Amino acid sequence: MALTEGRLGIVAGSGTLPALLAEAEPDAMVVAFEGTELTLPEARVERHRVEKLGSLFKSLKAAGVSRVVMGGGWARPNINPLKADALMLRLAPRVMQAVKGGDDGILRLVISVFEEQGFSVVGAHEVLPALTAAPGLLAGPKPRAEAMSDIARARTILDALAPVDVGQGCVVADGLCLGIETLQGTDALLRFVGDTPARLRGQRKGVLVKRPKQGQDLRVDMPALGPRTVEAAASAGLEGIAIAAGQVLILDRAEVEAACTRHKLFLLAEQG
Amino acid sequence: MALTEGRLGIVAGSGTLPALLAEAEPDAMVVAFEGTELTLPEARVERHRVEKLGSLFKSLKAAGVSRVVMGGGWARPNINPLKADALMLRLAPRVMQAVKGGDDGILRLVISVFEEQGFSVVGAHEVLPALTAAPGLLAGPKPRAEAMSDIARARTILDALAPVDVGQGCVVADGLCLGIETLQGTDALLRFVGDTPARLRGQRKGVLVKRPKQGQDLRVDMPALGPRTVEAAASAGLEGIAIAAGQVLILDRAEVEAACTRHKLFLLAEQG
Repeated sequence: MALTEGRLGIVAGSGTLPALLAEAEPDAMVVAFEGTELTLPEARVERHRVEKLGSLFKSLKAAGVSRVVMGGGWARPNINPLKADALMLRLAPRVMQAVKGGDDGILRLVISVFEEQGFSVVGAHEVLPALTAAPGLLAGPKPRAEAMSDIARARTILDALAPVDVGQGCVVADGLCLGIETLQGTDALLRFVGDTPARLRGQRKGVLVKRPKQGQDLRVDMPALGPRTVEAAASAGLEGIAIAAGQVLILDRAEVEAACTRHKLFLLAEQG
Repeated sequence: MALTEGRLGIVAGSGTLPALLAEAEPDAMVVAFEGTELTLPEARVERHRVEKLGSLFKSLKAAGVSRVVMGGGWARPNINPLKADALMLRLAPRVMQAVKGGDDGILRLVISVFEEQGFSVVGAHEVLPALTAAPGLLAGPKPRAEAMSDIARARTILDALAPVDVGQGCVVADGLCLGIETLQGTDALLRFVGDTPARLRGQRKGVLVKRPKQGQDLRVDMPALGPRTVEAAASAGLEGIAIAAGQVLILDRAEVEAACTRHKLFLLAEQG
């Protein structure tokens, strides 16, 4: 049985989420891999090498951690086998296998390894439930019927991609797919959309749909939306953003809503 | 019964393909819509407004055209209803419907309309069969086993997208999807891939897979590859390109192969 109570360990990726998690649970122990850029003060964080997972687990256990949350952005680590400790060497075949697959493969492996070590793994949305949205229009003007059609088409495209473990975001304008999110993330997608030549795009605006992949484990790779994404969507000429209710973290919600209002860009949370 | 013999009409899109078609069939009549940028001399071309399809068909018939080939790149036309002729007005509801769907929707409509007018529609690969490739390594070094895995993964991703009418190209590196082709085309996809930050991409190279969508009508929207695509793939740091044998037009093959050799980039044609 995984424990549901006990001291929390925060495995911090990049971005602002780890700081929000640490703020919500001041007693939590924060660990991060070498090289991760954090907004937390370095004194609040214990750094570990990704090659020395054995010592990471030992530290967490010694500190009384029983629950772990992973939060923030993850770049694939470049692992130096010469520095691997005994546990990492044992895991090597599974790591190599996971690296071949999609992003979810490696993240699912990380969850399994934490669980095998006796930790329960919780999602950032469980530690910070207020950071997700209930269904409804969160900010900006009511979406036009055409925008609702574009949202539906973007969801169809993302659903088609779910079995191959690609795509947390998609932009559609007047039925035309202007971009699909890949490794580079949402902001890169929106820059790409914004660069669409006018002869192809015409007067079309478009919508961004952002939601987890079907079957995606939200405990590791939860989609997130912040003010920067709203600014990027506005720069790309979009008319709105649709997210999955309860399944997308909204970072700095007041500023997100203010940016939507400022740019007359709708933000809609949709069920399911 | 559609005629298989008779004078050819070339409906010219952008790029070099219309000129190759016109060279292969010197007797062909060449028509193009206003605004299309052609490499053919203007004297070789009869221009029509997209709103006046009736007069286009009348011209083709008066010139004895019975077979039509569409070749080159197509931007979605912006149609001015005030200029529409009687035929175009009758077609308007179907045009509006097709514009809502994917690219294939509008192109399928174009084929239907030509066929309803009594023309047979042939593919550029039928007029120029030598422009496609038989299976095998066309240029560059033999692909590594890892590159073959990446090709397989890219094909899986494109197959997943086929039912939603998106994607003629995909880039995968070490199992990671770095980009999926949308409206903007292959060169834009490759620029996007080349812009992937090093912290995400690491030392990964990657492959471009380019093939028609499953069920795509090659008569209208045949994928094409030219020297510029090879240069763009090299600039994006890829190690090779895989295309569908018999289903992708190779424009300027000698220069394509020379560019592959120069950049040590493989070009592989795959069955099916």
